[in-house]
Parts: sequence; C-alpha cells; structure tokens
Amino acid sequence: MAKDFSWLYRGVAEIFPQSHDTDSETESLEKRLLNADHPLRIKLGIDPTGADIHLGHSIPVRKLRAFQDAGHTAVLIIGDFTARIGDPTGKSDVRRQLTEEDVSQNAQTYLEQVRPILDFDTPGRLEVHYNSQWLSGLDLAKILELLSTMTVGQMLAKEGFAERYKKENPIFLHEFLYPLMQGFDSVAIRSDVELGGTDQKFNIAVGRDLQRHFGLRPQFGLLLPILIGTDGIQKMSKSLGNYVGLSEHPSQKYQKLQGVPDHLLTQYFELLTDLPLDTLPDNPRDRQQFLAWEIVRQYHGEIQANQAQEAAKSKGKEGVLPEFSLANITQFPAKLAHILSASGLCKSTGEGKRKIQEGGVRLDGEKITDVDLTFFGPGDLSGKVLQVGKKNFVRIVP
Amino acid sequence: MAKDFSWLYRGVAEIFPQSHDTDSETESLEKRLLNADHPLRIKLGIDPTGADIHLGHSIPVRKLRAFQDAGHTAVLIIGDFTARIGDPTGKSDVRRQLTEEDVSQNAQTYLEQVRPILDFDTPGRLEVHYNSQWLSGLDLAKILELLSTMTVGQMLAKEGFAERYKKENPIFLHEFLYPLMQGFDSVAIRSDVELGGTDQKFNIAVGRDLQRHFGLRPQFGLLLPILIGTDGIQKMSKSLGNYVGLSEHPSQKYQKLQGVPDHLLTQYFELLTDLPLDTLPDNPRDRQQFLAWEIVRQYHGEIQANQAQEAAKSKGKEGVLPEFSLANITQFPAKLAHILSASGLCKSTGEGKRKIQEGGVRLDGEKITDVDLTFFGPGDLSGKVLQVGKKNFVRIVP
Repeated sequence: MAKDFSWLYRGVAEIFPQSHDTDSETESLEKRLLNADHPLRIKLGIDPTGADIHLGHSIPVRKLRAFQDAGHTAVLIIGDFTARIGDPTGKSDVRRQLTEEDVSQNAQTYLEQVRPILDFDTPGRLEVHYNSQWLSGLDLAKILELLSTMTVGQMLAKEGFAERYKKENPIFLHEFLYPLMQGFDSVAIRSDVELGGTDQKFNIAVGRDLQRHFGLRPQFGLLLPILIGTDGIQKMSKSLGNYVGLSEHPSQKYQKLQGVPDHLLTQYFELLTDLPLDTLPDNPRDRQQFLAWEIVRQYHGEIQANQAQEAAKSKGKEGVLPEFSLANITQFPAKLAHILSASGLCKSTGEGKRKIQEGGVRLDGEKITDVDLTFFGPGDLSGKVLQVGKKNFVRIVP
Repeated sequence: MAKDFSWLYRGVAEIFPQSHDTDSETESLEKRLLNADHPLRIKLGIDPTGADIHLGHSIPVRKLRAFQDAGHTAVLIIGDFTARIGDPTGKSDVRRQLTEEDVSQNAQTYLEQVRPILDFDTPGRLEVHYNSQWLSGLDLAKILELLSTMTVGQMLAKEGFAERYKKENPIFLHEFLYPLMQGFDSVAIRSDVELGGTDQKFNIAVGRDLQRHFGLRPQFGLLLPILIGTDGIQKMSKSLGNYVGLSEHPSQKYQKLQGVPDHLLTQYFELLTDLPLDTLPDNPRDRQQFLAWEIVRQYHGEIQANQAQEAAKSKGKEGVLPEFSLANITQFPAKLAHILSASGLCKSTGEGKRKIQEGGVRLDGEKITDVDLTFFGPGDLSGKVLQVGKKNFVRIVP
C-alpha cells in the first residue's frame, strides 16, 4: 500500500540516512513516518540575530508546514543562548552580543513573518523553544561529555574548518562547541527530523550522534537547497541585495520576482510554491509574472497580488510606490529623522525620531533602530524604499 | 643590594618569562619576590588518582618548601574535579572515575607523605584547595569564554597533541579543555608562581594567558627536571620499578638509593637535598651512601638513617628486614590475609582481613585495599616487602 510522499520529496536536496545505508539500525524516513503512532517532532533552528527574513529562509519553513499538514509537530528552536553571549573573542561582527530584549523582539518578528507559512492554530502542530532553557543549565562535566563524543579530526573535517585550518587562519576552540550545542538541542527536544540547508549536514549529523550517545532514536536530516538570489548568480542574501524579504511591500516583492532569470524559474516554483510543475505557462515572461503573482498571493492574498500585478504592468519597472526625490534634501550629512519628515512620511523630525524608537521605520525592509542614523550623501539612499509602519512607503530617487 | 636567590635557582630547569623576554609587561621573578609586600602565592597541582608518591614527585614539593621558608604561601590544588568525572570516553584506564571518598582518602595520603617536606605549622604558609570548588560552578557561557582564548593551532602545537595528530591517532575534543581547566585553577587562586615538571610548560603558560584574560597579574612558571629512576635510564615511575616511594621503609629507601648510578648522583643531591654540592665526598661509593643516608634522614630522622646504614653495611644487599619464606605457604592460590597470618605479621587470617580493611597493609609500599587479594604463585610475591602498620615489615623470600 504505497502512500504518496511527493510532499516530502519535493525540492529536497538530500535525506539522510538513506534506507540503503549500511548502518544496521537504519530505518528509512518513509518507514518512520508510516509507523508513527504519534506525531513526529520536526526541528528547525532559528538564528535570532537578525530580524528580517527572505524567501531563502522560507524554504525549510515551507517544508515544516508540509510536515504539519501530514499531522506532525513543528518544533522551532530559537537559538537565543548563542545570541545572548555573542562571540566571546569579540572579533566577529556577525556574532555581536544581543540583549534578552533584542532576542525576544527578533524572535517575535520572525514568528510574525512566518505566520502566513506555518499552521499556528491547529493544537499540537507547533512548539517554540528557546535553547537557553537547556543550554544555560549545562555544567562542566556535561560539556566534557559532549566534547568527548568527537575527535579533533572529525571536527576539522567539517566544511569551513577544513579550509581555514589548511590556510592557517585561526579557528578558536569555542567554535568547536557550536555544532555540539546545536546537536544537543536535538537531544533536548527529541527531534525525529531536523530540517536545514545543505550547509547544515555536519551539524545535523552531530545531532544524530549525540542523540544516539544519550540513548535516543537518532533524527533524520532533511536538507534543502540554498536559494540563488534574484541576480541568478549568488545565494540569496540581504547584504548582496539580491533578496526578496518576507516583510517587503507586495509591489516590491512583485517587482523583484518578475525579474528572476529564466534558468531559476523551475527551482523557484518547486521550492517556493506548491503548484504542480507541469501546469506552468510555457512563455518565460508569463512564468515570471505567474511566479511573482503566486508568491505575493501566498503572503498577502489574491487582491494584493492582482494590484501588484496591475501596477507593475502599468508602471513598468519602477513600480507603484510614491517617490521622494533627494533633491529636496538641501544639506548632507542628513539624519534619517529629517528625511522622514521631508518625505512626508512623518509630520516632523521629532515624530521621525519617535517612529524610529518605536521600531516602525524600515529601509529596504530592514528595521532601523538608531535614532541618530545619519547619511553623508545621496549615494547611500538613492533607490531604496523607506517605510513607516505597515502601509506607508516611498521609493527614494536622486 | 643583591639578595641571595640560590634557594630559588637550585635544580631549576627553567623559569619563564625571563626578564629579558620582549614582552613589555614582563618583570622578573626576582623582582616580584623583592617587591612583594605580602606573601606570594605558589601553586602546585596534585593529581589525586594515585595514593603513593615517590622521590620524583617530591622535587616540586621541596621547591615549594623553599618558597615557604622565604615567607611565601604554598597553595596545593587537589585536582578532584577531573578525578571525580574520570575519562568521559571510558577508554582510559589512567582516568578511571573515582568516588568522592577515594579522592579525599588519596588527598589525605598525599598530605601525610609530604608532611616531612612542607611547613604545615607556620600560620599562612600552606593552603589546600579542591578545584571542584570553582570548576563545578562553571557554566556554558564561561566555558565558551575559556575556549575562545585559544586557537586549534595553538592547542595542537602542544607536545603530545602534535604527535598524535600527525599520526592520526584520535584526540578527543574534551582533552582540549584540560589545559584550560588547569589554567583556570591559576585564575581561581590568583597564583604568582606555578611549579611543575618540564612537561608542564604548556599548561602553566595557559594559566598565564587566562590570568591575563581575566585581568590578573600573570603567574611565573618554574619548571623542575623530571627525575631519572634508580636504574639510571628511564624517568622514575612506579610501574617501571625504578622508584623510591616516600612511604617505603627506611631500609628499603636506603637499599635503593645506595644503588643510584654515579652519573646521576650530582643531580640527586641537587634536587633531593639541600647540601652544598662542593662538600660531597670524592669517592663515588661514599657519595652513594651519603645520599642514601641523607634522604632517609630527611624522612625518618638521624637514628633511623644510621640504623638503615648499619644494617645495609652488615647485611649487604639483602637489608635488615626479617624474612618470611614462601616455603611456608603450602598451597596456591593463597589470599593475602592468609599470608599475613602465616608470616606472623597478624595473629590470624581474620586479623589480616581487618588490617587490610583499615588500610594498614602495604606491599612494596603500596597500600592494599582488596580484602580478597589473591596470589596465584610465589612469583608474584617473592622479593617484596610486606608491611602492617608503620613498624612491622617482612621481606618475602622464595
């Protein structure tokens, strides 16, 4: 009696272990799903150091939703422990130390953004945990035990470490603990499956080993591709500007998505929609517009999707946003609060400051928190979208 | 006004950092000693996994006494934390897990044995700490901080790790924590100087780095040579049988020491006595006997030293102990309790068992704790010295 597992395999890069792996204990993920007499626990780790997420991040979340729809429990792990301590060497900007408030605000923003994707309502389908809950209670004896499950050679084989070690770039010892901490999360929540990008294979495998070490049934790893950005070349990333943010305006989303290069369209449809791939329009231009429409529809509904499409058609590439010209700013350096006032988004510089303090101001989708943020010339602003609250946008033009 | 520091330099292999090191913060140890307006804290770490210690172990303890006599504080660190958790991989016999009781008994036995060397009586001259006091309170954040002070490359440069990594012998990750734990002991007790064998240079240097990291004045390392055993070839070690135990009978000590090869005599005098080296007898045989006498005198006083010497002279190599012939044991396997009774050291097998239980029985200086210890033939016993309490000995002969 074959069951349909197309929801499981759609867009997946790798599931491990495979049933044909030589490990004698190995079952297949299909078998575990078929034999489950209670909901399986599907883990996805969330890094709460940044607030805004993009379509690339949405891919494992969408797979999580597929598991929810099959009756299983999504377990989101907010990695607050690491975010709270930051990078102990103080050398990494990426791991700057966040306050408890930062972390909880970022986590809240994350949950708001994935709300259109996940099932938040059916009882038993979603759990959210902060990993400080178990990590902050670990003592030296337990940490020695965690470390003792792996050798230096195994750790240095990990992608990233291997190259750095070869190039004699310093690897600090505490970095070896991070994969074990992520692995211990799997022990703590007793996950059956962990989702992640293909770059997470090592960490997810560590989770398997630790679960086995602690006498638990090891999880499966389900790896998803890393999404290529709208430039068609590099992986989607905010800093590269080739991203589509989940909190962006429907028209912005539509604009960006109708420019996705043809060679990526099938993958975008596969990873970002549930549409059958054999029903897509033949014409590439039609496919682009259909993709853009469908994704806007997912996050904002049909009406907004139609509006965004209409607007894009009538206005061409520049989109439907009101524009604010930097010619109106007579003097640089200029504070953002002043620009908010000059553009009419706020009634005064004072209101601009208040809105920033309240967390209601975004520049190209990124929340601005520095009240004194200052720009030294038009080059830093031109082409960006400035936003106050959920509905007020201007596109900044020269 | 030069002060006499000959007590400091006698027998020392290395003191680091030297005053001519390029580190701008570097003072010399002499300067720190001269400028001290309160007693300096001199650290020596003790491994409580074995109960009995030998003359090799006594060398840093003797140096500690020299610091005490110069007015400073000896700080003994009992490494109970590591001993209590054992080796988390369970693969090492050396790091078998000890109970709290084992550890405290071993520590007690250690202190008894070094009592003739150290100043236990002058107030403020001796502190004894168990490192579980601070190590068991470390949490994950603190441990990440400790680990972040070093790189993988630095750790793999450590003697021992380097060879194992090159040979692809597994190094387990928790092993990287041990030098940091020993280093953190220096932070916890704020040591000014740490004593150790030349094999401890890396660990003591880690202590310096951690003290600096935590804003403390870094300690000096004072390294002492590893003693060559009475065979004149390998380092003194119980398992090699080339050792002189501090708890051995005066006559045993004398016997062993009068056999120390000529090429080691100067070093033995330098490391194990306070005698001016230019007053030693010219004749090698006289030097051997003088060494044996002087060391027995240190631990047991002049009368015992004279007796041991007399006995050795009159009886030659066999010594002065009453002998018990294994011909009296008619049947093997034989329990030690039975041999204690047969030899007359105990009145009955029952008393033999009681004495073992009380910890009063030693075989070649090693305390026996297994009431049911059984020998399967005379070969395991012949030539050894059996002892009950402090004064009753027999030498077992075939």
